[in-house]
Amino acid sequence: MMIIMKSNATPQQVEAVIASVKSEGLNVHLSQGVEATIIGAIGETHNIPPDRFEGLEGVDMVQRITQPYKLASRQFHPENTILGIDGFTVGGDEIAVIAGPCSVESRSQIIETALAVKEAGASALRGGVFKPRTSPYAFQGLGEEGLELLAEAREKTGLPIVVEIMSQVQLDVMVKYVDVLQVGARNMQNFNLLRAIGESRTAVLLKRGLSATIEELLMSAEYILAGGNQRVMLCERGIRTFETSTRNTTDINAIPVLKNLTHLPVILDPSHSTGHADYVSAVARAAVAAGADGLIVEVHPDPAKAVSDGKQSLKPEKFAQMVNQVGQIAQIMGRRLAVSSAYQPAKQGWA
Amino acid sequence: MMIIMKSNATPQQVEAVIASVKSEGLNVHLSQGVEATIIGAIGETHNIPPDRFEGLEGVDMVQRITQPYKLASRQFHPENTILGIDGFTVGGDEIAVIAGPCSVESRSQIIETALAVKEAGASALRGGVFKPRTSPYAFQGLGEEGLELLAEAREKTGLPIVVEIMSQVQLDVMVKYVDVLQVGARNMQNFNLLRAIGESRTAVLLKRGLSATIEELLMSAEYILAGGNQRVMLCERGIRTFETSTRNTTDINAIPVLKNLTHLPVILDPSHSTGHADYVSAVARAAVAAGADGLIVEVHPDPAKAVSDGKQSLKPEKFAQMVNQVGQIAQIMGRRLAVSSAYQPAKQGWA
Amino acid sequence: MMIIMKSNATPQQVEAVIASVKSEGLNVHLSQGVEATIIGAIGETHNIPPDRFEGLEGVDMVQRITQPYKLASRQFHPENTILGIDGFTVGGDEIAVIAGPCSVESRSQIIETALAVKEAGASALRGGVFKPRTSPYAFQGLGEEGLELLAEAREKTGLPIVVEIMSQVQLDVMVKYVDVLQVGARNMQNFNLLRAIGESRTAVLLKRGLSATIEELLMSAEYILAGGNQRVMLCERGIRTFETSTRNTTDINAIPVLKNLTHLPVILDPSHSTGHADYVSAVARAAVAAGADGLIVEVHPDPAKAVSDGKQSLKPEKFAQMVNQVGQIAQIMGRRLAVSSAYQPAKQGWA
Amino acid sequence: MMIIMKSNATPQQVEAVIASVKSEGLNVHLSQGVEATIIGAIGETHNIPPDRFEGLEGVDMVQRITQPYKLASRQFHPENTILGIDGFTVGGDEIAVIAGPCSVESRSQIIETALAVKEAGASALRGGVFKPRTSPYAFQGLGEEGLELLAEAREKTGLPIVVEIMSQVQLDVMVKYVDVLQVGARNMQNFNLLRAIGESRTAVLLKRGLSATIEELLMSAEYILAGGNQRVMLCERGIRTFETSTRNTTDINAIPVLKNLTHLPVILDPSHSTGHADYVSAVARAAVAAGADGLIVEVHPDPAKAVSDGKQSLKPEKFAQMVNQVGQIAQIMGRRLAVSSAYQPAKQGWA
Repeated sequence: MMIIMKSNATPQQVEAVIASVKSEGLNVHLSQGVEATIIGAIGETHNIPPDRFEGLEGVDMVQRITQPYKLASRQFHPENTILGIDGFTVGGDEIAVIAGPCSVESRSQIIETALAVKEAGASALRGGVFKPRTSPYAFQGLGEEGLELLAEAREKTGLPIVVEIMSQVQLDVMVKYVDVLQVGARNMQNFNLLRAIGESRTAVLLKRGLSATIEELLMSAEYILAGGNQRVMLCERGIRTFETSTRNTTDINAIPVLKNLTHLPVILDPSHSTGHADYVSAVARAAVAAGADGLIVEVHPDPAKAVSDGKQSLKPEKFAQMVNQVGQIAQIMGRRLAVSSAYQPAKQGWA
Repeated sequence: MMIIMKSNATPQQVEAVIASVKSEGLNVHLSQGVEATIIGAIGETHNIPPDRFEGLEGVDMVQRITQPYKLASRQFHPENTILGIDGFTVGGDEIAVIAGPCSVESRSQIIETALAVKEAGASALRGGVFKPRTSPYAFQGLGEEGLELLAEAREKTGLPIVVEIMSQVQLDVMVKYVDVLQVGARNMQNFNLLRAIGESRTAVLLKRGLSATIEELLMSAEYILAGGNQRVMLCERGIRTFETSTRNTTDINAIPVLKNLTHLPVILDPSHSTGHADYVSAVARAAVAAGADGLIVEVHPDPAKAVSDGKQSLKPEKFAQMVNQVGQIAQIMGRRLAVSSAYQPAKQGWA
Repeated sequence: MMIIMKSNATPQQVEAVIASVKSEGLNVHLSQGVEATIIGAIGETHNIPPDRFEGLEGVDMVQRITQPYKLASRQFHPENTILGIDGFTVGGDEIAVIAGPCSVESRSQIIETALAVKEAGASALRGGVFKPRTSPYAFQGLGEEGLELLAEAREKTGLPIVVEIMSQVQLDVMVKYVDVLQVGARNMQNFNLLRAIGESRTAVLLKRGLSATIEELLMSAEYILAGGNQRVMLCERGIRTFETSTRNTTDINAIPVLKNLTHLPVILDPSHSTGHADYVSAVARAAVAAGADGLIVEVHPDPAKAVSDGKQSLKPEKFAQMVNQVGQIAQIMGRRLAVSSAYQPAKQGWA
Repeated sequence: MMIIMKSNATPQQVEAVIASVKSEGLNVHLSQGVEATIIGAIGETHNIPPDRFEGLEGVDMVQRITQPYKLASRQFHPENTILGIDGFTVGGDEIAVIAGPCSVESRSQIIETALAVKEAGASALRGGVFKPRTSPYAFQGLGEEGLELLAEAREKTGLPIVVEIMSQVQLDVMVKYVDVLQVGARNMQNFNLLRAIGESRTAVLLKRGLSATIEELLMSAEYILAGGNQRVMLCERGIRTFETSTRNTTDINAIPVLKNLTHLPVILDPSHSTGHADYVSAVARAAVAAGADGLIVEVHPDPAKAVSDGKQSLKPEKFAQMVNQVGQIAQIMGRRLAVSSAYQPAKQGWA
């Protein structure tokens, strides 16, 4: 249930409404936009008539949120959420470009890649240290050692780091190191993990599952938001279909659909959504033209020798070309590439 | 089998090789590019050793085409095919924008729409007169009367017309009127229809089936090409997946994949691939950014009253905005919108 | 709209209601079941209030058919349709087993197969003469010569013949020879073909398209029924999904779903729905256990040498085992295998 | 790599080969069948030539396992694995029927259901206490209190209990209570969970993910097997496709495919694979006819009041009919329903 306050409502009136909502046993989520303050009353609201709150002072109107996701809904939070990551923002005018190898393999590999993607214009560095591999016999990542190497690469380049988390038991060590927690496609409905992340305040990049609907992606975001962590961005990374000429099918429709349904930033991963280095730039351009807020791209100094995902990794020079093209399209869209600045303390998102 | 001639091969040498190929009971398809003349030998070639032709004068080398499609393959025809439609081209620097209503409904509706889309920058007019409707009780189209109305609209605007054909028995009447025959998704594997069209010389817009792979689309194009009709363009129009928030899933990957595999022009239909007017412009921009050679878009002067596909049809003013945005992206890609000129006799495609 | 007559309504009352329906410009379809006579009024009924017919003598009640398919709906025709094919029935207690090669290849091949499948207990003989092949360079079938060979095989064995039709231009020659017209998956929405078949009175086996929903299958059946041809059976033959270990995914759910929604007989094609001879018997048993009214199975005397679909064709001895297993399951279900008798003139289905 | 011992190899020879494998840094997995003892050498075997072991005494031959899953492969373990659960077996002649509510809701609900399913012939009781719900606001299960209620129901009925685990942090409490750990579809690629379960010795029911291929299901089983837990059964529960008339699409093909590829027991969940109580019995019969080793079915005393999955839950009397039908089909297949006996200590599976 959304309680929309009058534009001239006083802080005291807002406080009084919040108290009233809490007295009904409901949770309160506050969305303070430029145009309106909206109080979200989340919980067992179906038995509470809207007029329970309509008469309170300062209340403009009370509406039910018709979609199953509430906090993620643009109905509840009409303005775009702009997430501050160290050195840049996602969801506003800037287009974020997160780049780096599938897996952290060695000190030299990650440092070399970090320097190269920074020079090419990346806003952040990605790199996996806990790898969700289909086979138990495949390389499973360097673990905490990899996190230390990533932290070193961040120190050298100023690029914030984005790392996949696979289990809630990794959360303590992860939040010590990373700027953005990535939840991978296979864990999009690992609800225990989502709930744990909801209790942290680290930014999250939530990837869509291989066969998850857009609504299910938003419901998974809702798990994190409901826990109090508002720093969530969504990521389309291709869905599983019958087509076999690419690794996945990029659901480009998901970009305008998500921008319509939610206020959260939406980025696209053209590396996984195509699975072929040859197609990454074309789909990266398409994403920005369709309205995406950013990209996450696999880059490796020597793709043929990568321990994982070499086939879909760009060489640094090809990545630089891609960034250049994407930047031009951003301009047409009235936007610009996020330029990473030196490492700074995190800014808070909405709420 | 491809017989690649030396760059200085004489016409007589080419003729002699062709005669030799025919003497083996094979069909000959000639591809005369700027860099090389390639003679395609199509038929039961697996028993013929390459050295049967390698020794002939003027022959540079002989290669087997590894893909199941031959004439559609970029291996056989390395340069882009540029199709001449009346007043513009598809497959070269120009981006074609075909627009109009799902169905021709009345004289005033089609004339009004034609004038509006022309003013907005369309290169050609679309309009259905034989409609493939899921229900036998739904409006099935105006038939030949609709063709006459389209011809009148063409006369008034100079826009060539693109019309769907549903059966080979309609071919005679269709080729009298239309500039481009459209084969719809449900008929992509109507092989009798494809074979009939292969024997005509009218340009064809071949849409991908709802669950057709990219390879199957190219095999269907091969049916038309093998019949001798080289004027084929392909159209991605969304595939059927589990996602229900859009009518279909736009397979944006298909654009760079097709441009890689084939020399034929590739266009995209964002109206069917999304099914919602709100998402059409975003996906149209994405298509051109990904490298598409054109667009086919549903436009209706009053979508709410359209007898079919109103939900996904753009109003003329929204279409004009879309054309403007697409034109800017085309420029970044080193291309430009095709500007329709007055009605002129058709030019021939390759071969 | 369905007008349900009282159980004691007189023929004169039925006639009077029919005349009244026709006077509204609607089409009449009559369903005379054991329990009730139902008059279907098909056409632009949404403007006609039910009480237009409710007051007529002999009328019990008037209901709208809520589903988009009308004549195919079990609402309109509550009892199972039992189709009489020469020598057996489909849709009642008998389980029909249609068997034979993918393509008719030669006289000896089809006669040998016909004798073998008859001995194994088949109810009818299948064999393709017009083949929908993905490649224009693949074997396209023997055409009318193949029909003559099938007729000869029928003469020798008494087995009625089931043959695929690909285009309405083949209808005249087909109905001269065949007992059942098969509409293949790729033509399920070839509406011109469906309409043409609707005007014939030959029995039809309508296969579900690769990515057709169950509702779309019923809508395609409606095209045939609306034309006046009531002799339609439906066929699940596997749908296209992401799974690649089988050629298609057998949608076994479709059996009980279709039996619930429609009165038409439902059979299953385990050869195409699995694509592997090793899995055919298991899925054939599953189909009958799930309530299917019959099977259509590819059998070839020497699968390794078959010109098409060898991989999924059973050898006659393996087919005989399958028939035996299926017969036992039929018994548990209170049914029995249809035993083909000598060739007899066709019986009519419902209506 | 598989080292197949001669049938007359002595235990000392087997020991010597094992020592030799270990000295290469490989893990050893032993499969002692009736016909042969097979030593699986798992790890970095690609650099080790087969003749490293071929010359050892008692060795018959050495083969590489061609599939990416090793311990799950029928190549490595040719005979069916027969899992002993308390009171019955899965994978041999017996057909196991696991039944119970989606969620444990209350003491009376679970006791009543347990008594009813036992009387109807169930072999084990299912019931969820940690529920993977799409919405964070939906009922999430009773947690450990639910486990205590299940244990009480087991005491009263002798039925072993099958309960879903969602996270490795729940493992300690789960293994104290449950006989079979269920891994749900959404966690099929939660590799941390799989690895944790691999270190326990509790039996596991591993469900196929919504869009997981059969190969991926086997790779996930491999995670558990590689950890040393051999007590794994697989479960087909429907995959996600474009069809919307059922909740999922039962992939009945998966039954014979899995029985061909792996030695592990395979069961089917017709409740989730159809999503409608009306279709459960038909698909349950189909599963057993296709060769499944068991079923897991949702049963609720009052489906309309169930807090979750009521639509797909059978009433006890309908479940009893289903068991009866399935039992008859089992007989034709040369099998019989597992009849649960009084509660007994667990037997060990293979190895």
